[in-house]
Amino acid sequence: MPNGADALIRTLVDLGVDTCFTNPGTSELHFVAALDAVPEMRAIPTLFEGVATGAADGYARMREAPAATLLHLGPGLGNGLANLHNARRAKVPVVNIVGDHATYHRQHDAPLQSDIETVARNVSTWVWRSERSEDLARDVAEAITAAVGPPGQVATLIVPADVFWQERAQPSAAPARVAPPAIPGNLVEDAAKAIRASQRTGILLGGAALRERGLIAAARIAAATGARLFAERSAARLERGAGLPAVERLAYWPELVHRQLDGLERLILAGARAPVSFFAYPGKESSLVPDGCELTELSSPASDVPRSLDQLADVLGAAGVKPILQPRSTPPRPRGPLTPEKVCQAIGATLPDGAILSDEGITSTATLAASTGGAPKHDLLTLTGGAIGQGLPVAVGAAVACPDRPVIALEADGSALYTIQSLWTMARERLNVTVVIFNNRAYGILGAELTRLNGRSTGRTARTLIELGDPNLDFVKLGAGLGIPSRRVDTAEQLTGTLVQTLADAGPHLIEASVPL
Amino acid sequence: MPNGADALIRTLVDLGVDTCFTNPGTSELHFVAALDAVPEMRAIPTLFEGVATGAADGYARMREAPAATLLHLGPGLGNGLANLHNARRAKVPVVNIVGDHATYHRQHDAPLQSDIETVARNVSTWVWRSERSEDLARDVAEAITAAVGPPGQVATLIVPADVFWQERAQPSAAPARVAPPAIPGNLVEDAAKAIRASQRTGILLGGAALRERGLIAAARIAAATGARLFAERSAARLERGAGLPAVERLAYWPELVHRQLDGLERLILAGARAPVSFFAYPGKESSLVPDGCELTELSSPASDVPRSLDQLADVLGAAGVKPILQPRSTPPRPRGPLTPEKVCQAIGATLPDGAILSDEGITSTATLAASTGGAPKHDLLTLTGGAIGQGLPVAVGAAVACPDRPVIALEADGSALYTIQSLWTMARERLNVTVVIFNNRAYGILGAELTRLNGRSTGRTARTLIELGDPNLDFVKLGAGLGIPSRRVDTAEQLTGTLVQTLADAGPHLIEASVPL
Repeated sequence: MPNGADALIRTLVDLGVDTCFTNPGTSELHFVAALDAVPEMRAIPTLFEGVATGAADGYARMREAPAATLLHLGPGLGNGLANLHNARRAKVPVVNIVGDHATYHRQHDAPLQSDIETVARNVSTWVWRSERSEDLARDVAEAITAAVGPPGQVATLIVPADVFWQERAQPSAAPARVAPPAIPGNLVEDAAKAIRASQRTGILLGGAALRERGLIAAARIAAATGARLFAERSAARLERGAGLPAVERLAYWPELVHRQLDGLERLILAGARAPVSFFAYPGKESSLVPDGCELTELSSPASDVPRSLDQLADVLGAAGVKPILQPRSTPPRPRGPLTPEKVCQAIGATLPDGAILSDEGITSTATLAASTGGAPKHDLLTLTGGAIGQGLPVAVGAAVACPDRPVIALEADGSALYTIQSLWTMARERLNVTVVIFNNRAYGILGAELTRLNGRSTGRTARTLIELGDPNLDFVKLGAGLGIPSRRVDTAEQLTGTLVQTLADAGPHLIEASVPL
Repeated sequence: MPNGADALIRTLVDLGVDTCFTNPGTSELHFVAALDAVPEMRAIPTLFEGVATGAADGYARMREAPAATLLHLGPGLGNGLANLHNARRAKVPVVNIVGDHATYHRQHDAPLQSDIETVARNVSTWVWRSERSEDLARDVAEAITAAVGPPGQVATLIVPADVFWQERAQPSAAPARVAPPAIPGNLVEDAAKAIRASQRTGILLGGAALRERGLIAAARIAAATGARLFAERSAARLERGAGLPAVERLAYWPELVHRQLDGLERLILAGARAPVSFFAYPGKESSLVPDGCELTELSSPASDVPRSLDQLADVLGAAGVKPILQPRSTPPRPRGPLTPEKVCQAIGATLPDGAILSDEGITSTATLAASTGGAPKHDLLTLTGGAIGQGLPVAVGAAVACPDRPVIALEADGSALYTIQSLWTMARERLNVTVVIFNNRAYGILGAELTRLNGRSTGRTARTLIELGDPNLDFVKLGAGLGIPSRRVDTAEQLTGTLVQTLADAGPHLIEASVPL
């Protein structure tokens, strides 16, 4: 009879989960040993669990199916938690397999024992501990069902070592997939009424509304009614570029969002939540909905959001209307000493067709949207939950999911260091990722936030505590140390030349762009 | 009136917590801004939370007082969890300050929001959320009291941003310290009876018993009665070297522990728990207590363990007995191509007086104890909870706590990569740490464990999944990328020469030792 690990891997593959990002320890070795018998499962090692969980996130965003992770007890799950938080916030499906001590070993409270469930609860509403090999295949099938949703979620299956190794298992039948709930007709009617009631109406698009079908439907509505379109800030995946409708993404700073939404009398939510300030500030409102603006929810993130937009377009008689699409345009190649803006411009000038952009440039990519709006069609993957260290792992996962598409990771220096181990997995798997590091020698966002503190002068200790220049981080050496061809560029000409070359080459590359703060 | 952050930092300092390892985000910036007004607080930035928490652990092990950490919401605590797990397992005190969204912001469920308490519960029995600036000083005083114990623990104080910034705070009075409970006389009598009853008695020392006073008392008992001394495997801090009693530390592999304890009829626990296998193996017992061996607990880890040994020595009439002490001896300087054993020998041959060894060499430091037993007095800090990525941060904390003592971090290649960001903090703070990386291009321990799996042949996928050679990790480049002078050595002569030099130099150094698996 197969052991639990055999049945687990077979069931994962049978149910379409054929990629596993791993960081195993001894309690998961029976899973590792069972991999050779199921060659359909691609196991991808990582040097740190945050890489595994972030890669699973990036993979699912692009593949529209979950990957599994393989993690080592409570501390392993803890190391992967930040990127699971990001996945949870964006409703991206992930199936965590977390090994644990053997069932009979737990009473002895060995050094690695901890309460895994408490950690898992932070990111998972679906948490289950398998107690018998006989049930493991069924349990993982349920984990997949839970992860896929709708809405997508992080599902965490805890597997004691003896449940992996006991030879009493069998694969499970495939569970039925659940369709997203239909959109109640009155919601569509209410949204239509709101749009008809005021010329000053906005539609805030989120989740699946930011893919081509939803964008086109929304753009038809906009063309027919004058409604303005916005995208939620923390978009898991946003399709952009020439031939797609242009949608303005909400800004990070609350005062900029106020300006974006100024004058709106109605705001329709399609797969998005009401806009809220990322952080609170003394004396400032948390809600970013303009005063007096009425909110109408057309479709929740868990529902079939693109369909809700199609239905709304129908009701408004906009189904046949021609949407306004972004024309093709390329920014001129920038010249001279680098700035963050010139890096974004260089990306726009060189972006190949079908690229995937993982953007964790934080303050440095403020102008990315403007520079790439008319570039060839591409996908933008953003920082969904605010836990930094997500951009490089997400690029790993996206490149695994889409081996034929070029991936560009735009990374801030500070953020890159949380999961810099991603570079090694890129090298090991020969992934087509070009990593561009903005090295401004600081946590730029914290510097900006520090200057906003009311009535507080900033002292030397506070300032130096958010600087990264003493010593400077040398990303060329870090990249090379982790096995990736790496180079530094100081001018825009060097950058565009290098980008053109690395995007044409197979395998990963790292470019360190020295930019002023 | 001071704001919450002012009062918090002032209270920390007043109660002896004058070092904070930080990785702040926006919600903790009022804490950062308040630092300049309290110069007695040393704030040490880290590039990753696991460095901050592991450094707090290492600091407390050496300073015998807790440090604080400053972490950013649930994901920041998650990133620091693995090393907090290690601290928890060894009862090392840590005071976590975890920022959260402002109290009134939480209802809006902004992107970084999560249930911080669930994560904290994995490592903390003391978890508290401050809700008012007025109470913050009192709350942190309670956190310190909880952390200090006895027994020491990880205390987690969650501080919403507005509790930091509201100007309604005042410092708190110092709380009363709690003395460890006295050892009940009958426990001492029972232990004495057990020792008198059999010549085949062992004493397993743990926690504070592994410091000089406890070791000397135990060695007197051993000299007077013939009892054999053992040290728990996961020792937070073990004083060793010439002039101290030699104590045999329990091995990792259960079959080796069986051999160590073979024939014992009684085992006395002094600050240690009954020995248990690190992991479970099919068909093997978890408990490592020999069959028929009677256990007697002299003193729990929470009690005054050195005192219990003094009392036991008194009862046994051993108080005046001369303990057997380790004579001074130095292994010959090794020669030729490096092996893990030769690296350990080189450490023994060059170890300066008063050194601190942070040992996370895993399989590579199996012979460290034998090579350093007769070296000058030193402290050994080990992996306490089995969550790897602890050795480099612990070295950071130990070097901060003991600036006049040389620190050597012995690191496995795989383990080093979990918290490699530690090197940057070593460079920034000019810490006297020599990092020795054993690069054997694999997770050696997993390879050893994989060969133990019963009845399973190991396939190619399984084997390559625990290898680190494709691509090879270049630690010289990684060290240099993070600002540390770094070099590679291939021969024992190069290694000893380099060690002598780096141990004499101020500031951090990295030595990559290429060793066979």
